[in-house]
Amino acid sequence: MLTVGVIGGGQLARMMQPAAIALGIELKVFAEAENSPAKLSATSIGNYLDPKLLSEFCEGLDALTFDHEHVPAQLLEELTSQGVAVHPGPKALIHAQNKLVMRRRLAALGLPQPIWSAAKNLDDIEKFIAENGPEVIIKTPIGGYDGKGVRVISSASQAQDWVDNIQAFGSELLLEQKVPFVRELAQLSARNPSGQFAAWDLVQTVQESGVCSEVIVPAPNQSGTQALEIARAISVGLGVTGVMAVELFEIEGGALLVNELAMRPHNSGHFSIEGSTTSQFEQHLRAVLDLPLGETNLLAPKVVMLNILGVDNENDFQSNFKAAMAKFPEVKFHLYAKSPRAGRKMGHLTLLGKNQEELLDHAIAARALLIGA
Amino acid sequence: MLTVGVIGGGQLARMMQPAAIALGIELKVFAEAENSPAKLSATSIGNYLDPKLLSEFCEGLDALTFDHEHVPAQLLEELTSQGVAVHPGPKALIHAQNKLVMRRRLAALGLPQPIWSAAKNLDDIEKFIAENGPEVIIKTPIGGYDGKGVRVISSASQAQDWVDNIQAFGSELLLEQKVPFVRELAQLSARNPSGQFAAWDLVQTVQESGVCSEVIVPAPNQSGTQALEIARAISVGLGVTGVMAVELFEIEGGALLVNELAMRPHNSGHFSIEGSTTSQFEQHLRAVLDLPLGETNLLAPKVVMLNILGVDNENDFQSNFKAAMAKFPEVKFHLYAKSPRAGRKMGHLTLLGKNQEELLDHAIAARALLIGA
Repeated sequence: MLTVGVIGGGQLARMMQPAAIALGIELKVFAEAENSPAKLSATSIGNYLDPKLLSEFCEGLDALTFDHEHVPAQLLEELTSQGVAVHPGPKALIHAQNKLVMRRRLAALGLPQPIWSAAKNLDDIEKFIAENGPEVIIKTPIGGYDGKGVRVISSASQAQDWVDNIQAFGSELLLEQKVPFVRELAQLSARNPSGQFAAWDLVQTVQESGVCSEVIVPAPNQSGTQALEIARAISVGLGVTGVMAVELFEIEGGALLVNELAMRPHNSGHFSIEGSTTSQFEQHLRAVLDLPLGETNLLAPKVVMLNILGVDNENDFQSNFKAAMAKFPEVKFHLYAKSPRAGRKMGHLTLLGKNQEELLDHAIAARALLIGA
Repeated sequence: MLTVGVIGGGQLARMMQPAAIALGIELKVFAEAENSPAKLSATSIGNYLDPKLLSEFCEGLDALTFDHEHVPAQLLEELTSQGVAVHPGPKALIHAQNKLVMRRRLAALGLPQPIWSAAKNLDDIEKFIAENGPEVIIKTPIGGYDGKGVRVISSASQAQDWVDNIQAFGSELLLEQKVPFVRELAQLSARNPSGQFAAWDLVQTVQESGVCSEVIVPAPNQSGTQALEIARAISVGLGVTGVMAVELFEIEGGALLVNELAMRPHNSGHFSIEGSTTSQFEQHLRAVLDLPLGETNLLAPKVVMLNILGVDNENDFQSNFKAAMAKFPEVKFHLYAKSPRAGRKMGHLTLLGKNQEELLDHAIAARALLIGA
């Protein structure tokens, strides 16, 4: 039986389970704690930095992959040298782990990016603000996600604490222009070790407070050609295996700039569970096992996905199923079985149809019923 | 967290898992043995006839349901009286457990059936053959499935062994005319305890050696109205809760006769996993929890499902994924993680599209590649 190991027991590992069940693949999850969203498949629980636990976990795996990008590259290099099939491999993954490594590599590949620079001290930051301000973006190269590790600043002193701790981030911070974008897009794709590449339709994403709130598929008024070629160039250039999401800014005139990379199934691709012939979770399993990739066509002209964020420490939303399902029998509800917390990604919902405005209206109303707003 | 218990760890319980994962429902499976297809969710393993094990299993469940129809009605009556929400309830389920009870009840409801009779001895059988032969069908009222417990006979002596053991079958056997059917159909539906009823499109089924081999959705050249009304009458008349499949014969002229009933997700409904907005497995969970039912529309004009039967004791088909997936990226493959055995239901595959002939051709070719034929 084909066996895939996943480090991390979050909702991405959880959503790999249905795809694994369908294909008769054994999924083994190395979870951080009991009661993780992917607990059904958790065969190891604890700290993946423990070499003994990790090496036991990797025994007999046909592929090792990830729910998140936090596993140190050095550890993955060691596993690779021990014969573990790590996908994405550490040499690719480093670009999703370290935003400065990513910026430098995309520059070398000649891909479109925001104006950026590395900063070692407050002077570097002041200089970048003077040239690209009044406001600029500063990011910790490692450890950021969902708006964490990112700040908008107009003075170097606003990053004083990060500069004081700069060793923790690799002795450099990343500065980026505050891109005057028209909207945000994301291009989801997959590549297997044999080199087969497949991409879904370009999507439009709407963020709220740095967290993805809604996804519109396909992105209106965009051919998708430019995004597809960017994704292909990154995927091939960096040797990515598995699913990759390229987050993009669209600027006035339609040109695209690469914002962020994720080398794993991604929030912008949850629409594919019901919206595409092959979901990003099935595709990721196929890719890391070096199986041929599945068809990525949409099953409806339009698909809308909304995230469901926690409202407090109590409401797990299941008590509102009755009201939400009665009104919206066509909505696909997803809950990740997490302990409720305000602002936490607790689930999502997806709607397929023809009219994007109507889908979005219904999705917003369904979410309101589900969260009891 | 909503919790559903399932007695039986077969592929139907296995395929409830993805639906439960999506909705954040905890699924608990009472499996017969280790290594069942639904082992991921197995919280009890052993004999469900053990009252202590069963009562422990039922603690804290929001609903109890089934992977098969073998649990004795008396046991379910006891659980019901202890406050367990058993769906379908024993008073409905008895009609799927005992074919004679079903025939008598459908007759009382005035629903169309083959000519049938109960037989207590060889004389009864000879008389039925004389009136309805030369060939007739004889069935054990209980314990039959997938062609087991069913024989075509032209002489009472061919059922001598069953008559000798008639006590084991409730002291009666079921005789049915050998219906000169044009084709076989199946009507899948669901009903929740609040009385909401929903049905999918009528499907055509093709059996080989008593086992479902292919399913064509929707059934060509049938309005579906008659089948829908039969299913509704049975569902309401018998107080069915959860998913129900009504297997039907279509005779010359288009009239329908009820062949068999199943009160659980059914092989004829596997197409709905990818083919419908709401799969039969999600619908079953919604129904047994008395949640509002989901939309049952098709996501493509035509859907084809083929069963994948074992070819020997070795081949689990995963080694053929490469060949099959490379040629057919649009096919949805399902494997149940069973030990291989010739003739055993090992999995199925589903294809969505527009042209039924083409879908069937591709499905047959994909199956051939998968089983290594």
